[in-house]
Amino acid sequence: MIHIGVIGSGSWATAMIKMLTDNAIEKQIHWWVRKEEDIDYIKQYRHNPSYLSAVEIKLEKVQLVAEVKAVFAASDIIILNTPAAYLEDALKDLTPEDFKGKLMVSAIKGIVPSIKLIVGEYLNRKFDVGLGDTVVIGGPCHAEEVSLEKLSYLTFASKNTANAATVEQYFQSHYIKTVESNDLLGVEYGAVLKNIYALAGGICHGLGYGDNFQAVLISNAIREMEYFVNAIDPQPREINKSAYLGDLLVTAYSQFSRNRTFGTMIGKGYSVKSAQLEMNMVAEGYFASDCIQDIILQHQLEMPICNTVYNILYKQEPAASAVRKLTDKLT
Amino acid sequence: MIHIGVIGSGSWATAMIKMLTDNAIEKQIHWWVRKEEDIDYIKQYRHNPSYLSAVEIKLEKVQLVAEVKAVFAASDIIILNTPAAYLEDALKDLTPEDFKGKLMVSAIKGIVPSIKLIVGEYLNRKFDVGLGDTVVIGGPCHAEEVSLEKLSYLTFASKNTANAATVEQYFQSHYIKTVESNDLLGVEYGAVLKNIYALAGGICHGLGYGDNFQAVLISNAIREMEYFVNAIDPQPREINKSAYLGDLLVTAYSQFSRNRTFGTMIGKGYSVKSAQLEMNMVAEGYFASDCIQDIILQHQLEMPICNTVYNILYKQEPAASAVRKLTDKLT
Repeated sequence: MIHIGVIGSGSWATAMIKMLTDNAIEKQIHWWVRKEEDIDYIKQYRHNPSYLSAVEIKLEKVQLVAEVKAVFAASDIIILNTPAAYLEDALKDLTPEDFKGKLMVSAIKGIVPSIKLIVGEYLNRKFDVGLGDTVVIGGPCHAEEVSLEKLSYLTFASKNTANAATVEQYFQSHYIKTVESNDLLGVEYGAVLKNIYALAGGICHGLGYGDNFQAVLISNAIREMEYFVNAIDPQPREINKSAYLGDLLVTAYSQFSRNRTFGTMIGKGYSVKSAQLEMNMVAEGYFASDCIQDIILQHQLEMPICNTVYNILYKQEPAASAVRKLTDKLT
Repeated sequence: MIHIGVIGSGSWATAMIKMLTDNAIEKQIHWWVRKEEDIDYIKQYRHNPSYLSAVEIKLEKVQLVAEVKAVFAASDIIILNTPAAYLEDALKDLTPEDFKGKLMVSAIKGIVPSIKLIVGEYLNRKFDVGLGDTVVIGGPCHAEEVSLEKLSYLTFASKNTANAATVEQYFQSHYIKTVESNDLLGVEYGAVLKNIYALAGGICHGLGYGDNFQAVLISNAIREMEYFVNAIDPQPREINKSAYLGDLLVTAYSQFSRNRTFGTMIGKGYSVKSAQLEMNMVAEGYFASDCIQDIILQHQLEMPICNTVYNILYKQEPAASAVRKLTDKLT
């Protein structure tokens, strides 16, 4: 029997527990939940107390574990599903030895802040995990719709597509269809960039731009994303597949996206600090903007939308004039 | 001084009158409005009584005309802006002679029903207008946002880009930016197809599919559109430019789209007839579906989304099972 570890206990991790337990293949799941009291709660009430609480946790298939190291020891496949900003802390007690022979899966859509790397590259550099031994899970997939069993498509990307195929079989169900891809870095960078573009969409919305402009912005954003991933990792790819364009759309056109909401507040005149305080959570696109800007400079790329977001968030450029300049660069 | 004729008096035509009169270049506009009583109303109150009534008509620049032939005689540039279904009736008294030396512009996003041709091809076949003497105006552009002077981008496409450049200069203003294109047929077919895809999105929404699926549907739709226009008129084109993808997005993600609303009713179980009665207007995507299906069969194209819409609207296939079959073909 296959043993699958899940690291993280937010909405997306909880959705993943549901998908794995609704899938027909027999398996044992080892779920690392950080807080002891949450473990106790889930054991007693069969629900995550804080996230996606509508999902019933099938405890006969899921073992709750308080130690990350124990999850690694028990599992063949490990799914990382913390916010990017907390990944390093979650893995802090592990060594490359713990990763040997494991198939690693990243469901994280973000950049590891301290070293400014996407997760696949981070695992490679820090823990000697081969890029072919990592699988990235791409959207478009709001966790909330998984809990409602609304039909969703997940993309499994790996430089070794046999590994993508291995992982995807554990997710398929009547409401989950899967797509394979060989584009590990493209899918991962695309998922990071889309948060910046959703933030840009929010800023413009906050400034009073309408739907006509939003459509132009997103059609420029997908071209900018294509240009970026082709520069970073040249290989044939169809940028309009659902892992890239679909994921951008579900994020940018969602009223519930944290990134879009954060951007809207900036567009309406909140400072970055006060928007963060007000939201009481962190928009991944905020960190991503800083990290991506480094890569833009390093590779000397022309990324007007990402530049605009960066200048507004980190260089105190007023949003109104920054976006006005951007409008001259869009087509 | 340039003389510009506008044929049609719906929302989009009224928005165009506003754009032309807000543009700085001096010009005389000859506006054909079908109903005499509407002409009287506009002359008296400076507003279109039925559409986009918030727009003030600058009568010092706009001459209201009751005869289409008179508009043609007086104008150098003629902008067609009726619903596609009423175009033939509007032009019924004209002969190829009336079109000689005129620069024709189509702002119609639809197919002329009786001969199942897009407007550029229709003018070419019926009135001997050269394809290079026609300019097509593409979106993304809701008329309502023009009336609010929200920044919008229009694409001007012609096989003779000098003609596109001639026309676009009369539209630019502080809220209208313009893009040139040499892809007359691609922009026009794209604008027709997007109505079918918006209708498809509505059907799925009506059936209960969520935002995750909608994003997958649209990312498949833009690929299907690219495949179609490349088959019909092979030439280099970037399908993610705003005239194609942007126009699709503003339509498919709009709550106000007639096509999406019509589709939603079908998805919820209304018959085509009752949905049409209930809406009291016609969704362009309904006619487009029939016309595009002919082209699909003629060229033996694989167009699963268009096929699904056609089968539901014209072949009485139940929406639920038709869409369920479609979901297996999406990636």
